[in-house]
Amino acid sequence: MNCNTPTDVTFSFTGFAQRGGNTGDHADGWGIAFFEDRGLRHFVDHLPAVDSPVAELIRRYPIKSRNVIAHIRKATQGLVSLQNCHPFVRELWGRYWVFAHNGDLKDFRPRLHSHFHPVGDTDSEHAFCWIMQELAKSHASVPSIAELTITLKELAARIAPHGTFNFLLSNGQALWAHASTNLYYIERKHPFSEAQLSDEDVRIDFATQTTATDRVAIVVTAPLTVNEEWTAFSKGELLVFVDGQRQGC
Amino acid sequence: MNCNTPTDVTFSFTGFAQRGGNTGDHADGWGIAFFEDRGLRHFVDHLPAVDSPVAELIRRYPIKSRNVIAHIRKATQGLVSLQNCHPFVRELWGRYWVFAHNGDLKDFRPRLHSHFHPVGDTDSEHAFCWIMQELAKSHASVPSIAELTITLKELAARIAPHGTFNFLLSNGQALWAHASTNLYYIERKHPFSEAQLSDEDVRIDFATQTTATDRVAIVVTAPLTVNEEWTAFSKGELLVFVDGQRQGC
Repeated sequence: MNCNTPTDVTFSFTGFAQRGGNTGDHADGWGIAFFEDRGLRHFVDHLPAVDSPVAELIRRYPIKSRNVIAHIRKATQGLVSLQNCHPFVRELWGRYWVFAHNGDLKDFRPRLHSHFHPVGDTDSEHAFCWIMQELAKSHASVPSIAELTITLKELAARIAPHGTFNFLLSNGQALWAHASTNLYYIERKHPFSEAQLSDEDVRIDFATQTTATDRVAIVVTAPLTVNEEWTAFSKGELLVFVDGQRQGC
Repeated sequence: MNCNTPTDVTFSFTGFAQRGGNTGDHADGWGIAFFEDRGLRHFVDHLPAVDSPVAELIRRYPIKSRNVIAHIRKATQGLVSLQNCHPFVRELWGRYWVFAHNGDLKDFRPRLHSHFHPVGDTDSEHAFCWIMQELAKSHASVPSIAELTITLKELAARIAPHGTFNFLLSNGQALWAHASTNLYYIERKHPFSEAQLSDEDVRIDFATQTTATDRVAIVVTAPLTVNEEWTAFSKGELLVFVDGQRQGC
């Protein structure tokens, strides 16, 4: 989620968490990260999201954030363990960077010669560390979001041929999303309407929860609601969202 | 806490959290980090620990860990915000490093010329980034705990003259603790006995919760229990604990 006003994710997370062991088979751990200004709340758990006491806290405690990345894991490479749960976090240029990957990369283990090294043993964390290394090399100081987007497009194009590489990345200022197979987004804005979750019998009327200036973008691997129009990413597309709006680039 | 068997901190945390706004005035946020193998659960909140829904989760959900660092903040430098809550986390050599500081450093803002930069604006995070930078420079590859201890003693001695520098540091393998004013430790081992919290009317009989081989070391700024013997650190002393035991060095 990327938005222009701090917003809670309790509605979306309620449906999403069902896919972690209930309506979906992604039951090998989960995680979620919320930016608050430059700060970050980062929760990971190796239990399935449907059974996790930490997930229960997230469903009940409305943490408000402008940038949130959540992930439920189906292990393809690496054991079921806490260090392999997405999203992963690193610091670069005095900001936290958060990364989650859906997919599977084959034969992508480039040498990491800088200061970013995986703690776990997934292909995903290795790819993230390589992205951080290459971003740090490509820009002497903190680049603009537009400059970062150009670099990330180049880097994503180098990784994507190795397999399935749907990813989300945020530094608290923007949300970058890259699709190699399935990724969808929606931009909610005034006039807001009612939405019905796909994974649980829960409805929400966003009109009662929002103001006319609120803008909220959600990016997902499969649409979360049944009565809204979600836009599919093209294969190989990298999009960037700022203040709840897709940026032209 | 450092121990040889995964142990929960619900008893100690119950007393400790009272100091975050109730029996103590450290009410400007709090945080706790639990290692599980190489993985890390990291919780921070800008609310006082006594009021925080996340602290309530920690009191009720017995997360078991061999290395835990917790902190309740009384702001001396930097605003009350999430990015200024301890403990801070960075990755180095493929391990997470967790740091919490009690005290106040004056005129210690060395240039950070490597890859570690503060996200918030505290003296504490700046000092941590400097320690990470200097550790990375001092050792080409992953050093032993004994080698790390020697380097950390040198680094702590360079920072300590700038003010009060009580700190805790862990990479999941060991717990390093440095005292410039108040720091106490206890090593609990067989035969275990009953303990009574200082900050709340709660008792626990460790004999019923442990096995004969368990060893647990706790390091604190003020003793947590009234009926156990806590050992004070000397001023300027840096100690390292592994598997619940103080190491000779």
